[in-house]
Amino acid sequence: MLSVAVRRIERAEPELIAGLKELGAATVHEAQGRTGLVAAELSPIVPGATMGGSAVTALCPSGDNWMLHVAIELMQPGDVLVVATTSPCDDGYFGGILAEYIKLRGGVGAVVDAGVRDVRELREQGFPVWSRRVSAQGTVKETVGAVNVPVICAGQRVVPGDIVLGDDDGVVVVPRLKAATVLTNARLRLEKENAIRAKLREGGHTLDLLNLRDKLAQKGLRYIDGPVSWDAKENL
Amino acid sequence: MLSVAVRRIERAEPELIAGLKELGAATVHEAQGRTGLVAAELSPIVPGATMGGSAVTALCPSGDNWMLHVAIELMQPGDVLVVATTSPCDDGYFGGILAEYIKLRGGVGAVVDAGVRDVRELREQGFPVWSRRVSAQGTVKETVGAVNVPVICAGQRVVPGDIVLGDDDGVVVVPRLKAATVLTNARLRLEKENAIRAKLREGGHTLDLLNLRDKLAQKGLRYIDGPVSWDAKENL
Amino acid sequence: MLSVAVRRIERAEPELIAGLKELGAATVHEAQGRTGLVAAELSPIVPGATMGGSAVTALCPSGDNWMLHVAIELMQPGDVLVVATTSPCDDGYFGGILAEYIKLRGGVGAVVDAGVRDVRELREQGFPVWSRRVSAQGTVKETVGAVNVPVICAGQRVVPGDIVLGDDDGVVVVPRLKAATVLTNARLRLEKENAIRAKLREGGHTLDLLNLRDKLAQKGLRYIDGPVSWDAKENL
Amino acid sequence: MLSVAVRRIERAEPELIAGLKELGAATVHEAQGRTGLVAAELSPIVPGATMGGSAVTALCPSGDNWMLHVAIELMQPGDVLVVATTSPCDDGYFGGILAEYIKLRGGVGAVVDAGVRDVRELREQGFPVWSRRVSAQGTVKETVGAVNVPVICAGQRVVPGDIVLGDDDGVVVVPRLKAATVLTNARLRLEKENAIRAKLREGGHTLDLLNLRDKLAQKGLRYIDGPVSWDAKENL
Amino acid sequence: MLSVAVRRIERAEPELIAGLKELGAATVHEAQGRTGLVAAELSPIVPGATMGGSAVTALCPSGDNWMLHVAIELMQPGDVLVVATTSPCDDGYFGGILAEYIKLRGGVGAVVDAGVRDVRELREQGFPVWSRRVSAQGTVKETVGAVNVPVICAGQRVVPGDIVLGDDDGVVVVPRLKAATVLTNARLRLEKENAIRAKLREGGHTLDLLNLRDKLAQKGLRYIDGPVSWDAKENL
Amino acid sequence: MLSVAVRRIERAEPELIAGLKELGAATVHEAQGRTGLVAAELSPIVPGATMGGSAVTALCPSGDNWMLHVAIELMQPGDVLVVATTSPCDDGYFGGILAEYIKLRGGVGAVVDAGVRDVRELREQGFPVWSRRVSAQGTVKETVGAVNVPVICAGQRVVPGDIVLGDDDGVVVVPRLKAATVLTNARLRLEKENAIRAKLREGGHTLDLLNLRDKLAQKGLRYIDGPVSWDAKENL
Repeated sequence: MLSVAVRRIERAEPELIAGLKELGAATVHEAQGRTGLVAAELSPIVPGATMGGSAVTALCPSGDNWMLHVAIELMQPGDVLVVATTSPCDDGYFGGILAEYIKLRGGVGAVVDAGVRDVRELREQGFPVWSRRVSAQGTVKETVGAVNVPVICAGQRVVPGDIVLGDDDGVVVVPRLKAATVLTNARLRLEKENAIRAKLREGGHTLDLLNLRDKLAQKGLRYIDGPVSWDAKENL
Repeated sequence: MLSVAVRRIERAEPELIAGLKELGAATVHEAQGRTGLVAAELSPIVPGATMGGSAVTALCPSGDNWMLHVAIELMQPGDVLVVATTSPCDDGYFGGILAEYIKLRGGVGAVVDAGVRDVRELREQGFPVWSRRVSAQGTVKETVGAVNVPVICAGQRVVPGDIVLGDDDGVVVVPRLKAATVLTNARLRLEKENAIRAKLREGGHTLDLLNLRDKLAQKGLRYIDGPVSWDAKENL
Repeated sequence: MLSVAVRRIERAEPELIAGLKELGAATVHEAQGRTGLVAAELSPIVPGATMGGSAVTALCPSGDNWMLHVAIELMQPGDVLVVATTSPCDDGYFGGILAEYIKLRGGVGAVVDAGVRDVRELREQGFPVWSRRVSAQGTVKETVGAVNVPVICAGQRVVPGDIVLGDDDGVVVVPRLKAATVLTNARLRLEKENAIRAKLREGGHTLDLLNLRDKLAQKGLRYIDGPVSWDAKENL
Repeated sequence: MLSVAVRRIERAEPELIAGLKELGAATVHEAQGRTGLVAAELSPIVPGATMGGSAVTALCPSGDNWMLHVAIELMQPGDVLVVATTSPCDDGYFGGILAEYIKLRGGVGAVVDAGVRDVRELREQGFPVWSRRVSAQGTVKETVGAVNVPVICAGQRVVPGDIVLGDDDGVVVVPRLKAATVLTNARLRLEKENAIRAKLREGGHTLDLLNLRDKLAQKGLRYIDGPVSWDAKENL
Repeated sequence: MLSVAVRRIERAEPELIAGLKELGAATVHEAQGRTGLVAAELSPIVPGATMGGSAVTALCPSGDNWMLHVAIELMQPGDVLVVATTSPCDDGYFGGILAEYIKLRGGVGAVVDAGVRDVRELREQGFPVWSRRVSAQGTVKETVGAVNVPVICAGQRVVPGDIVLGDDDGVVVVPRLKAATVLTNARLRLEKENAIRAKLREGGHTLDLLNLRDKLAQKGLRYIDGPVSWDAKENL
Repeated sequence: MLSVAVRRIERAEPELIAGLKELGAATVHEAQGRTGLVAAELSPIVPGATMGGSAVTALCPSGDNWMLHVAIELMQPGDVLVVATTSPCDDGYFGGILAEYIKLRGGVGAVVDAGVRDVRELREQGFPVWSRRVSAQGTVKETVGAVNVPVICAGQRVVPGDIVLGDDDGVVVVPRLKAATVLTNARLRLEKENAIRAKLREGGHTLDLLNLRDKLAQKGLRYIDGPVSWDAKENL
């Protein structure tokens, strides 16, 4: 592994980040072609919290959270800490003190592909954090990793400076240079969804609104009136 | 697979459904001889929400939620959408628009043996839904499955029109034709439990109330006074 | 298995228990040398609930909760029920009636290396319980196990009378005879953490406060200024 | 649960069973419309063993294998024992003695949605068995279940007398009354596959043989020559 | 954690170890009252290999195999290395060089509650090893743990000097001072099993041999002749 | 997602590939700084098979193996097929016909972050393949993905043309441009390991050979002679 800590990274424009954050993880994921989703094994530790910021990354060995300290020192206002490990580990890499340290640096959240602890404090602070597990298990500071290098976090590649969004649906990563395009697409998608909702409220059906009736027949779905007595005709 | 969508199904009487819903999943599961429980891998997405209704079923391929659209159009007031997949898949088959669509149809909840998304909206709506996972991952509409056929949802068979109950303890399925008997049994069970609670509050012990003292001795449990120094006598 | 139920056990002093409870699971786990943590697979069923007490243990076969009834009868004010199984099982060993029974005995919580049910009632009561799973699945009372013998609960050995602490971070076990020492250490640790927090608020960095800068260099971490174009130099 | 043991069941014709067994689980699964597959969590304990027979079912509580003894007594030559549990359990329900007992009854294999033991003996005997786990953990004989009732085994419904096929790819269930049709379909499928293989050996490509080239373009796949320098153009 | 390495431990008599090894894990587990089984998550890396010896234990942090080196130096002929971690970790703690080192010390096998690597070499050597995972992931040597202290290995407590047995069914631990009793019980059990097998071969049934017919009726199993048309009478 | 299929990719020199393959996954993983390891959830389907080649990648939706057909057509002699999915899926994406098709193209193996089937045929062919699961479940050909783009396969990034190595220890990816350096390092590592083995055979100890004795003391490991009676002094 390349044991470096990169001090400066390029970040996305705050307006783009704010716009994407407002649209939410699911819509943005769709809008960039169903890419960028961090694996659903990571879940929100503080329900209802939302977050959007630029990724500062830390790559750590099993059971060793040293690089988080190096990374947080390099964080700037608006940043999100993204923690990956070199092999799977559920130990408690992150907790109340580091959350406070991030906030003091101006950071806005954390994504930890490992465990976190001090959950009560994190909830009281409303600090947005996603992790694989809650675990009180402590970690050491013995082996260096890397900071601000590209990492794989829960199956998703994160390059330092990428936009990281999180809400109750999960975490999505948007490459910095794609942010403007994705934002445009996401707003279009939201409009379409709103139009569909409006039509549904007027009594419409999604099969019509999405133009799926003919395709249903072509693909072979056959409507039958029923009721069917499945007891007697299961092998219909 | 039989690619059919059955338009009409037979439903249970609303009074039976309401009565069972009030008693809750755990009591009803016991009352029908410890059968009907959907696997505990499905958990409530909206804590505290409860639900009871008639099953409208959708059977879907991996990563394809097309059949949900077909199924919801066929739902009637009081129905519950039950989603099964032909192989395990955690993608987000269900979210805010479909929840609203179900409510517009008069439906009362959903059980999804896969993933769901738009969790914040589902919670704001208080829409009762149980699923295997929260995932923002989108699905396609390319391959037909079946609607209103018997399905296996998280290890439990659900026939269209079966009564589906959900609360914080999980989801239980009651076959339509057994509902009256199960309701009677469940009410008896609740009475017994309440009687036990009353006796406990008077200082009773469950071993007496359940008549288990003699059986304990017969099966070989030996009381010893202690304290035992496990350090010295672990191999007692 | 030794099929005994031990009536009397030695308990720790209430002041020690109260002191440890106040410090919380993560701090106590650290203070006793990162030992005593029950596996993170057990999670709190009632978020925000905390607990500290003396362990009364029950060892049960798969799908059989009989020994819980034997154990609860032997509980005294301030005790915690600790349930282990002889092989992995997620059935619902514990629910509302047993929680009420424990409270009537003066007990303060439960740790169940299996499933629990009646979650709504447990939450309404604010009864502290940690378990592997929520499951409505019922259990039988056919096979004896043991009560108040040492057990392995989610990978952690618990001797009857050990102090068991639980909060949102998990469950920690403190051997009775170590409690005073651990309490002293834990308070020292908390002081150190508070000192670090104070320094951070003044603008300090953990790498300085923990004296890790030189060691970073010795272990080979190299700072570079950046920004790095990872597109061009990923093999830096 | 219905606590019955049904002595007589209807079985499929041996010629149909033999024909299906020869074609194997994957081909038969495809031939009946991608249905009937037992979940892949069950794996072969004796690599290379294959099996086809009529299902005799046993439904058992957690940690209790009593019903296997009831079921095996009712087995006839050519039968397969199918074991389901009322809740998930990995204990060792099945081992060398029961395998020998099945063989003495003329049975040809077992599918156990739980654990098995005596693996060395099972391998020496070449006894075909699929299970969720290898576990030496013993079970009790205290609670009745049911024999020769429909069960859900690893997510698949099995009705007594259904045809159960097993090989290194897994286990497939064919409803008795569908067996003739499925066999015909499966043979057709095998012929098609063999035709494709023959064409491939002559230098053909599956995209042509399956007529997928036009559809590729319609669905939007774009060929580009490359090589692409992903370092420079990842956001292509 | 107590960071000690204990040089001398008490070991069981080789005759007892040899006797237990011959009987195998499943029989010995039963013979000591269904206790002592290491969790089935550990599986044999070298199929068919068997092992029996005295436990030399190593307790290691996540991703750090330093203590294995300390432990192996202290091994004597006939010993088994037992590796536990302070929190779950699947990294490759053990491989070909350490296996050879153990053999040079006279050791007879290893049980690793973590990952192992160099599988091909281990198989060529026929070196008996059980582990949670195969993983090529390397470990560090930075943090001390403990050697020859009691550990929890895959849910089972192992005291240094305990007898550890392994075969295709898993790993069982026999406390040193119980070995003679367990061996006697295990031989009796084997005799009983052999007697049952002999009776089965003469046409007997286990329900008679285990004297379970009356109990079946008492517990409420009802035989019906059948065949039942489950299509029509599922709610029998 | 970028729906492209890239026809031409740059490949590593065959000599480098052959050299790395000979050294094996574990040694190469160490030699490139403990990077490049595909997650241990993928396991070899054909025990003993080994493989080394240039990656041709396919990125597929859940339950859809269309892109494998596009990818294999583009394979050249010496290539390895690497399959990733856009969300987790265990369906059987790959089997006997595709293995034969790969061999006809000159390909040398496959890494499938999903399921495979036709295991018996794969073993008879000795075709090297690693996968997450064996599953007979079929897939569709409805939704395009991408071919020869960078993918994340079981947590590891693979760029087309990277060297992919597989053996019983797992799968390791070596970036094309690093191959020469890694090969040199790996050979040095092997020499060192062989030197250590030679010294061990002469009676040496790894603590000396790795120069770890002083560090042990510094880090606080304390040797005690023993034997310790853990019954009496567990809290030593």
